[in-house]
Order: sequence, then C-alpha cells, then structure tokens
Amino acid sequence: MDTLRGSCVVGQSGGPTAVINSSAAGIIISALEHDEITHVYAMENGIVGLLEDRLFDCAKESIDELKLLRYTPSSALGSCRYKLAEYTDDDSDYRRILEIFIKYDIRYFFYIGGNDSMDTCNKISKFMQNVGYECRIIGVPKTIDNDLFGTDHCPGFGTAAKFIATVTAEISKDNQVYGTKSVVVIEAMGRNAGWLAASAALASVIGDGPDLVYLPENVFSVDRFISDVRALSEQKNSIIAVVSEGVRNNEGRFISEYGSTLSKQKDVFGHAQMGGLAATLAGYINSQTGLKTRGIELSLLQRASAHIMSGRDSEEAYRVGVDAVRYATVGHSDVMVAFERELKEEYCCKTLLRPLVEVANKERLLPQQYINRQKNNITDEFIKYALPLIEGNIDYPKKNGLPVYAKLKKMI
Amino acid sequence: MDTLRGSCVVGQSGGPTAVINSSAAGIIISALEHDEITHVYAMENGIVGLLEDRLFDCAKESIDELKLLRYTPSSALGSCRYKLAEYTDDDSDYRRILEIFIKYDIRYFFYIGGNDSMDTCNKISKFMQNVGYECRIIGVPKTIDNDLFGTDHCPGFGTAAKFIATVTAEISKDNQVYGTKSVVVIEAMGRNAGWLAASAALASVIGDGPDLVYLPENVFSVDRFISDVRALSEQKNSIIAVVSEGVRNNEGRFISEYGSTLSKQKDVFGHAQMGGLAATLAGYINSQTGLKTRGIELSLLQRASAHIMSGRDSEEAYRVGVDAVRYATVGHSDVMVAFERELKEEYCCKTLLRPLVEVANKERLLPQQYINRQKNNITDEFIKYALPLIEGNIDYPKKNGLPVYAKLKKMI
Repeated sequence: MDTLRGSCVVGQSGGPTAVINSSAAGIIISALEHDEITHVYAMENGIVGLLEDRLFDCAKESIDELKLLRYTPSSALGSCRYKLAEYTDDDSDYRRILEIFIKYDIRYFFYIGGNDSMDTCNKISKFMQNVGYECRIIGVPKTIDNDLFGTDHCPGFGTAAKFIATVTAEISKDNQVYGTKSVVVIEAMGRNAGWLAASAALASVIGDGPDLVYLPENVFSVDRFISDVRALSEQKNSIIAVVSEGVRNNEGRFISEYGSTLSKQKDVFGHAQMGGLAATLAGYINSQTGLKTRGIELSLLQRASAHIMSGRDSEEAYRVGVDAVRYATVGHSDVMVAFERELKEEYCCKTLLRPLVEVANKERLLPQQYINRQKNNITDEFIKYALPLIEGNIDYPKKNGLPVYAKLKKMI
Repeated sequence: MDTLRGSCVVGQSGGPTAVINSSAAGIIISALEHDEITHVYAMENGIVGLLEDRLFDCAKESIDELKLLRYTPSSALGSCRYKLAEYTDDDSDYRRILEIFIKYDIRYFFYIGGNDSMDTCNKISKFMQNVGYECRIIGVPKTIDNDLFGTDHCPGFGTAAKFIATVTAEISKDNQVYGTKSVVVIEAMGRNAGWLAASAALASVIGDGPDLVYLPENVFSVDRFISDVRALSEQKNSIIAVVSEGVRNNEGRFISEYGSTLSKQKDVFGHAQMGGLAATLAGYINSQTGLKTRGIELSLLQRASAHIMSGRDSEEAYRVGVDAVRYATVGHSDVMVAFERELKEEYCCKTLLRPLVEVANKERLLPQQYINRQKNNITDEFIKYALPLIEGNIDYPKKNGLPVYAKLKKMI
C-alpha cells in the first residue's frame, strides 16, 4: 500500500458524550506521531467550521492538555448539526471543502459522530473520489444512544449507561426511606432506540433495578402503564419506572407531545406546561391512583457525566481514535471503525471496519430478545450484553475535589 | 461523671442524604464497642418506628454490612417525617416512648436529622427529665440544606455541593458545543436557604461556574432575571443560571408555585410539593427573548449522589456519629454535636456541643456577605467557606462498575 503524505483534520459532530474527547485525543495524539501525517488540524464546530475555514493546529496544543481531553466531557473541538446536500443536487459545500482540503493539503479526514456524521463522511468521500482528489475518510463512532449500525456498541454509551444505572440505584434507595407508597418516573434519552432507558436495569445487578422499563421499540399505552403501576403498588411500596423519552402510542405519536392533553395545565404565563415526559406521567399516575409520585428527567446529565466515566468506555473511545489513524495510514478509506465482540467467557472487543455506506443513516434498535414478554422491562440477555460496557473506573485529575478539564488554545 | 449502663437506640429522620448512613455507622459501630452500652438498637423509620415498637438489634448485623453503610446513600434505617405534639398538650406519644425506653432499658437516644429532628430530641429530653427517667439524648446533624443553626456546616451538604458543582461544570461544557446562544436553567433544592444553589458556583474554581445564581435569601424578580439573561447574551453564547427551588417574589410567593406542578400534591406538613421551576423559567426566557433554553431540575439526584461522595463529608459524617456516642457516655445530654471551624490556614474542624434548645426549629440562611451586590451570584467568601467541604474522594466498593450497598437484616 502506498504511503499517502499530507495533513489530517479531525472533527466532532452531533450531540456530545462524556468520552467523545477521548476519541479526539486518540486521533490527535497518534496522528502527531505518524511521520506521513505532516500537520494535524482540528475543525471548530465540525464540518461547519471546515466550511468557514476555522481550523486550528493541534501541534500548538500542549501534550498535557491533549491528554486531559480523555477526562473532559462534551465536544472540546466544538460540534455542529449540519446536513450536506447531495452533491448531485448542490455541490457548493463540496467545492468549498475541496478548496480547504487543497489549502491545507488535507489527505486524512476523521469525523467523530453518529448516523448523520457517517452520512457526511460518505458524501464527502464520494465527491472526492469523483473529482479524483486522493484522501482517506474515516468515520469514528460516537453516541450515547448506542444506535449505530454495524458495531457491537458505541463509545459514549457505556458511560451514559453507568450514570443511568447508578443514579437509578441511588433514587431507588432514596424512594424507600419512608416506607410509604411512592412512585418515581425516570426519563432517559433515546428518541427511537431504548438502549439508554434499558441500561437503568443494570442496577438490578446490585438489587436496585427499576420495576418497570418502557422503550420506544414497543407501543406505549398509558392505560397499561397505570395498570402495571397499580398491580405493583399492591405488592410493594417503592416503585421505580424508567421511560424512554421516545415512547409512542399506537398511532405513533410521542407521549411527550400529547402530555398537555393529559394534564391540561398551563403555567402562570399562560403557556401549556412543557414539563417533560417524566413530570407528565408522574402527574397522571397521581391523578389516577392517588399514589405519591415524582418525575425525574435525567436530561443533559446522562450525556455529560464524565465524573462517573466507565473505564472500559474511556479506553475504547481512545482506541477507536488510535485505530482510525492506523487504518487510514495503511490505506483504508470510506469506512467506520466498529467493534466486534469476541465469543469468549471474558469480555473482549476488537475493532474492524465497516463500509460507510452500510452504516450511514441507519438506526440499530434494541432487539426484541432484550425486552421481556410483557414489554415492561428487559431480559437477562440485555444485562449480559451491557454490563461489561460500564465496568472499570477512572481516577480523573482533580483540583479541590473538582474535575480538571482540558483547555485548548485553538490557534492556527 | 457516673457511668450510665443501658441500651442505646439510634434513628434517622427527615430527608435522606448521601452520608446519613455514615453517621449511623459511626454511632452503631462505636456504641457496640462501649461496655456501658448493653444493647444497640435501631429504630425503623425514626420516631414512628419507635412508637410502633419496630426496633432491630444492631449486634445481629454483620460488621461488613455495617461498614458498607458508609458508602450507602439514603436512610438505611428508614426515615419519617413526624412532629411530636407539645407534651403539655398531649403526652400520649411521650408515654408510649417511655414505655419503649423501659421495655428495652434505653438510656441513650441518638437521632440523626435536621431542624425538626432536633425539636423531637428536645421535646423527648424535656419529658424524660420531667418524669425523672435517666437518659441521654443527643442530636446528630444531617441535612443537604446546610441550614442547621449552631454548626459551621452540616454533614450531607458537602457531597450534595460536590455533585451540584460537578454537574454544573459538565452541563456548562455541554452547553458550549454548538457555539450558538443557549441558556440552561438549573434548579437546586433549598426551600428557604440557598446553600445548595450557591454551591454550583464552586465550579468557578475550574472555570466552569454559573453566570447567574439566585437564592431564596433575596427577592426574585422574573423581570430582573430576564434582563440579566439579556445582558449576558450580548456578551457570550452559553449562559448557565442556577436557581434555588425556594426563590420567591416580592410578595413572598414561591415562583415555583405559580409556575407549574402538574399535580397538587402536598407533603405531610401541608407544604405544596415543589418542582418544575427550571422548566417554567426556561420556557419563559424563551418566550421573552427567543433564546434557546433548557431547564434541568437536579431533583433527588443531589441528595442521593453517593457515587461522588466528598471524602471530607464522609469522614465528618462518621465522626459526628462516633463523637455523639463519646459525648453521651461521658454524661452529656440535651445537645447536638456541631462543627466549629478553626481559624487556620488549612481547613480544620472540631466537634463541640450545642444545647438542643438553641438549635431546634431554627434555620441558618446564607449570610449576605456570601451574596454579590447585584444579588445574582455569590462572592469569593462563599467559595472559601464551601470549597474545603467537597474535597477528597471515596473509592467506594464496586461490583461490575456499580456501587455495593449495605443490606441490613433488621432482626430483633
């Protein structure tokens, strides 16, 4: 395989995770060590920054700060949500990208993101092949949603799952103290795929798992939910229900959207109450059963929770970055780095490559064998799948008990 | 001082914290070692369990499980919210308590709780003195609210403050990724005292503190809030505002009450159950300014967050338990164990005793020198006060990356 000399550029796209910077660190630090990579640039705010010529030179960052990226949540390079048109419809963005590639002699393009980002990679790759510009385009997986196609799991999911399982256990303990009947509804992210809500059930390993788990993979019935809660409340005092934000009724309508019709509440300013799904369902259970209820939306905390980073997730996020560079320098392009789990007693995942065209714009939902027959909790098979992903702890650098994050200079 | 031989009983009361079990462990483990304490009992669900003769024998618990209490959030003995009548009005509860004290030969009473619990201790103590039953009653401080009178700070606050500061920093990082204007409103607990909301500002030590902090100690004006946000949005993209659930308007009305609450639940004291302030304010900012907003209520997570326990808080919570037993066995009664900070360069707190009558039913608000002149953030003096309380980390026992909690047998 011919050596391709030139610059590389790395970018982050889509919603942040606690370990997306670990992948960036893996790419940057290993790219700086590769002789054929002459310059290592980063895009500010992903492809948008590239289009606006907002690159910075990673060689000007101190290595200590680059290493701190491994413990820094959110997208330190800056992120974007930007969908490229098909270049056959409108090639202006692509011509601009080519201009930037030529300006900086960019021959390696690493893009860390989810489904949409793989689509971006795929489109750029096709265009560059078409115009005969030699470069290698590699997608690096990232999403707390764990819904990327063609990979055993996604970096970012393990830490989010660990946070969700841990706080579910803590909330469960909290809800037991008075010995009175009480229902907590916890809302996890996941618009179409229920991996995050399901991961609350990992707390069952320590005896504090949720009683009920509802996922977007199955139709959600409010009546069924109430009857599940009613039945449980006859057996026990503390009930913990975890609901994915994406649950829909039998017409495919998001429950979170018709929340106001359940509650008919307006706030003092006259707006329909836009409280989340958890608050809506908690209020509705209370009105139907008289039980004391509380809704808790985990919100941004679940995707930013670097303070409880999964050791395995952190290591793997770094590894996909390092491997992306390695694969690119030996000639691969037009691929996403993916995980394949080996069938061993002990957990073991190796990286391999998937063609971008196979993963772009697809979603991997929770398979039905991970969901129980009643569609209100998960199975042991899911626990077996997800548990290894939350293991291991990170002793992150601290100052006065608080985490120390990377500060990048972002200079060109 | 005469040695008083007899049993002791320990109970927990009020809202749980991440370290209230650490105090219970301190009391139980050291009481088991004291020769004059013949039996160590615990009340299930505090004074309510005592009245119902629901005690269990701590000697029947394994020492390993008792040690695990130090890492277990929430009130493992069970808690209650129960207000004793004045015995001059109705002494039936008191006579029942005396009956139980006699039945088990209880001579030592340790009660871990906040303002209301100190009132309970005080009332029982007065009654027992009145009827001439010799016993020693000690209050052990606990509250995430940090509003107990007569002590430098309260066990439970440090861990809650550490969680709040850490997730504020994480949310701040998350809110910066797109480089677009965006406001996050974080709601912290604290009905009358702003210690918890203020503690978000500890994140300023690592450069990720909130832009605005509003506390119940000062009148909250929605208009003023909007104008603060507007002014900031002209200077920067990401704005983080932290609001205490207890903020009130100039008529003394809770903003949260005329905001949301899908249900009209009240707690046993008749207080309207709060919640939804963050979502209400976020929605209002959006309607007034057009800025993208998000409301995040930290909810139970802030009082249950054992996974990010402050090492100092954990150690001190244990110490007040151990010291309570020590003070009781040398003859003290009718007192609460308190912290006094020594005026040294390095943080140093010793325990001392405060008469219950001085601390019961009082609230310690944030002094005005901890709040800035504009009443929309805190001062460096507060940082200096609170920072030592969140320092130090705990490497808690884990199974598959999840915390391992104590399991008590609760046998008599």
